[in-house]
Amino acid sequence: MTKNNPGNFFEDFRLGQVLRHATPRTVTAGDQALYTALYGARFALQSSAVFAQACGLPAAPIDDLLAFHIVFGKTVPDVSLNAVANLGYADGRFLAPVYPGDTLSAESEVVGLKANSNGKTGVVYLRSRGANQRGEAVVEYTRWVMVRKGDAAAPAPEPVLPELPAAVSAGRLAVPEGLDFSGFDFAAAGAAHRWGDYEVGERIDHGDAMTIEEAEHQLATRLYQNTARVHFNQHAESEGRFGRRIVYGGHVISLARALSFNGLGSAVKIAAINAGCHAAPSFGGDTIYAWSEVLEKLEIPGRSDLGALRLRTVAAKDLACCAFPYQAVSEEGRGGYHPAVVLDLDYTVLLPR
Amino acid sequence: MTKNNPGNFFEDFRLGQVLRHATPRTVTAGDQALYTALYGARFALQSSAVFAQACGLPAAPIDDLLAFHIVFGKTVPDVSLNAVANLGYADGRFLAPVYPGDTLSAESEVVGLKANSNGKTGVVYLRSRGANQRGEAVVEYTRWVMVRKGDAAAPAPEPVLPELPAAVSAGRLAVPEGLDFSGFDFAAAGAAHRWGDYEVGERIDHGDAMTIEEAEHQLATRLYQNTARVHFNQHAESEGRFGRRIVYGGHVISLARALSFNGLGSAVKIAAINAGCHAAPSFGGDTIYAWSEVLEKLEIPGRSDLGALRLRTVAAKDLACCAFPYQAVSEEGRGGYHPAVVLDLDYTVLLPR
Amino acid sequence: MTKNNPGNFFEDFRLGQVLRHATPRTVTAGDQALYTALYGARFALQSSAVFAQACGLPAAPIDDLLAFHIVFGKTVPDVSLNAVANLGYADGRFLAPVYPGDTLSAESEVVGLKANSNGKTGVVYLRSRGANQRGEAVVEYTRWVMVRKGDAAAPAPEPVLPELPAAVSAGRLAVPEGLDFSGFDFAAAGAAHRWGDYEVGERIDHGDAMTIEEAEHQLATRLYQNTARVHFNQHAESEGRFGRRIVYGGHVISLARALSFNGLGSAVKIAAINAGCHAAPSFGGDTIYAWSEVLEKLEIPGRSDLGALRLRTVAAKDLACCAFPYQAVSEEGRGGYHPAVVLDLDYTVLLPR
Repeated sequence: MTKNNPGNFFEDFRLGQVLRHATPRTVTAGDQALYTALYGARFALQSSAVFAQACGLPAAPIDDLLAFHIVFGKTVPDVSLNAVANLGYADGRFLAPVYPGDTLSAESEVVGLKANSNGKTGVVYLRSRGANQRGEAVVEYTRWVMVRKGDAAAPAPEPVLPELPAAVSAGRLAVPEGLDFSGFDFAAAGAAHRWGDYEVGERIDHGDAMTIEEAEHQLATRLYQNTARVHFNQHAESEGRFGRRIVYGGHVISLARALSFNGLGSAVKIAAINAGCHAAPSFGGDTIYAWSEVLEKLEIPGRSDLGALRLRTVAAKDLACCAFPYQAVSEEGRGGYHPAVVLDLDYTVLLPR
Repeated sequence: MTKNNPGNFFEDFRLGQVLRHATPRTVTAGDQALYTALYGARFALQSSAVFAQACGLPAAPIDDLLAFHIVFGKTVPDVSLNAVANLGYADGRFLAPVYPGDTLSAESEVVGLKANSNGKTGVVYLRSRGANQRGEAVVEYTRWVMVRKGDAAAPAPEPVLPELPAAVSAGRLAVPEGLDFSGFDFAAAGAAHRWGDYEVGERIDHGDAMTIEEAEHQLATRLYQNTARVHFNQHAESEGRFGRRIVYGGHVISLARALSFNGLGSAVKIAAINAGCHAAPSFGGDTIYAWSEVLEKLEIPGRSDLGALRLRTVAAKDLACCAFPYQAVSEEGRGGYHPAVVLDLDYTVLLPR
Repeated sequence: MTKNNPGNFFEDFRLGQVLRHATPRTVTAGDQALYTALYGARFALQSSAVFAQACGLPAAPIDDLLAFHIVFGKTVPDVSLNAVANLGYADGRFLAPVYPGDTLSAESEVVGLKANSNGKTGVVYLRSRGANQRGEAVVEYTRWVMVRKGDAAAPAPEPVLPELPAAVSAGRLAVPEGLDFSGFDFAAAGAAHRWGDYEVGERIDHGDAMTIEEAEHQLATRLYQNTARVHFNQHAESEGRFGRRIVYGGHVISLARALSFNGLGSAVKIAAINAGCHAAPSFGGDTIYAWSEVLEKLEIPGRSDLGALRLRTVAAKDLACCAFPYQAVSEEGRGGYHPAVVLDLDYTVLLPR
């Protein structure tokens, strides 16, 4: 019997099943330094211990998305080895901040299942949760993924779809204990704008752009201990659908977030991921641009020092975002994303009022 | 007189000579984070402080091979600048675990010398030893390397070949003080198999693969402060034997070890390197696959919580390892390695019983 | 109104204006590990805590140039977004050593302004200062940069040029508190030469070389949170002056410094940058070689354990430096740099007497 991990197929998942993912991971200042080198992140709360302490935290937490990617990476050997596509995210919440020295582990519950009519694949809905060494949740999210069947004859389960909120409501956004933006130092943060300066419907072209190198996305994806084969094996992918390694979608999310500093520099904390779509794959050599739209302004109950913005950040490849590329109607009259769009992320950030 | 280091030539080595290598190196969590990003290592003992502490260690040690590469790198300016080929390893033992904050230094003793009959080169045998700031040995190994003569007229020394064991015996395998696998958490480790589940002769295809990028092997090799010129200088190598930079052989060892997680996930500690051969050079763009064979099962005297496996791990480039490529007979009837094989490593790991 | 940062144009600068730069940055062992991986730096003072402590410091400081690049990176969003060229450096002094855990911030004062006669650009002189969390200066330097005008009709300011020393004098070189080289361990440092062994006019070919990969300079430049667009956006640069991303000049400085170990291994501390010129741009794929000349030997007042060397280190691309390429006269009889030269750096180092 083979000892290597063949991954789970659609018929291996059961509603209510809890998957305890390997391997626990102690996060260090080294991970954060690599994250900075990979994306150029420069939000002040994660960049400076002095700034973080002035905001009431004990130290500079790691970037929220670094914690997300590490937790996500742990789910891959159990969830995604036989995946065809990562279909969506919902109801993602960032809870306890993660500090260097914390050890993260992850588990997921199967909260929905639906076989596809082609008999070859099905959609699995999972609620994943990353926790620190004290068992405190640091990030929770639902994602759904299309997974191949291993045995075409396996019977279809009763379809169950979880109820998912369109967005995380203001009352469910977590503000880290002690966090206080009443003395927020805008000059240190490199940001001129506060919550009140943003308007619903406002669009911001982030201007900057980053070209992805193969070495970069491989380093990132391995840092997250994400083992999905399509990111690493040029020999096999040269015969595959795209002829090339596919960039981990989370790498593009982190690039877009880092680019968003230019226009959203005071949005130093991500509180929620409401929805996300990898509209098209990215490859080594692509140059990623980004723009954002303010979807909603949320007041946080009981807080006058900070508020939340629900944002749509769109990443496009090889196209400057001054014209805010998003959706497009094809010549055949079908709707869909503009062909340059690679990411459509709906998320919520905290910033000083 | 030139102040730069010309390296040692064959005639510069003397039997019994002790080379104290520069530069001492304090290892940090940053080095370990880079190691994770370079290889995607995810053995639980090195990945998680919580896991390591549950196994009786004070903290998560760095990967054994990271310590090996740092020690190896220190020997390069004194040993390998004028080397033609790294011929072999023997009797490698991993001793005290290395923790972030430890400072490693290295020295080597010349334990064998043999001039080649061509009068241009000779083989130098060295016993190298890396130690921490308390003088405790962390890794010891013998290697032999073919070195150019600087002066073709230099007389050949009396040939002396060291006695080398075929493998490190069970009684000489070091188990770190305090290490106890009696409560080994297989689910956390992402590993289903214990010592008793493996059989001598069993072969495991590790399935996964990694394409090497030039930036990756250069980052790795510099991290180890290994200064061998063939790894870094495309301008000179474009006129060289292969037309390209050669990947540090240790980079391939670390890739193969990381790939071996898929099938050997509970083998969280390397105890010995018995022998090793870089069967062919690797280059940027090569995709590395790996498979392993269990050569021997060793009981550790006095231990019921853990045992050792002597393994052969073979790395091949641009060839999936489902058929376990290893040796091949050429059309001319000569034996040798299969042309895809780049590494043949004989080593010993510890895992829970 | 756009919320992204358009950068400052020439007419936005005022003599005496103080720019407080974002974002403060806590430096960690992770940054230093990346620095080692990017350049292969192996000067003993920064490599080993044990060595640093034997020299009287509390711990191993980060590389001087890592601190410089972080401070420089902070000035970019305010100074260089609309820059045409970085023209020069002067009077750079390294002051308090930087240790992991320190938080660096930066500010600059406009100390000179001169409009160019073309009416389209002007030169801005800035005195920049990086400080740690206690407000102690860690590095100070003057640089001047050619910046585009945003409004061609903006009036030219009264020209003011700062007085700049040709070199930092011995009396202004800072020796870190406690630093004592009287017990300097040359063997550990991998260096055979002390201050007295070097002679004015002596030239050293550093021998080694490094090929720059796109991923490497991008990782480095983002690590420094330097946001200058020309380093990252291949899509835009493919239409630009060179058709390619330009390597951050500081990346070449760090490569040359790391290469200089071979011949200057005991020069473990940079004390000053006297002048610097990026003679030509560098690109991914370039192989960097370096050589140095001793320009001056300086005694440090009151110190018999250490002295200073003023050096010129020249980096050249795709040309070995055995012939010390530097200046050249073109066919038309014009002077200038040898076409292979990319860096001409005049700086001062401390080493044991």
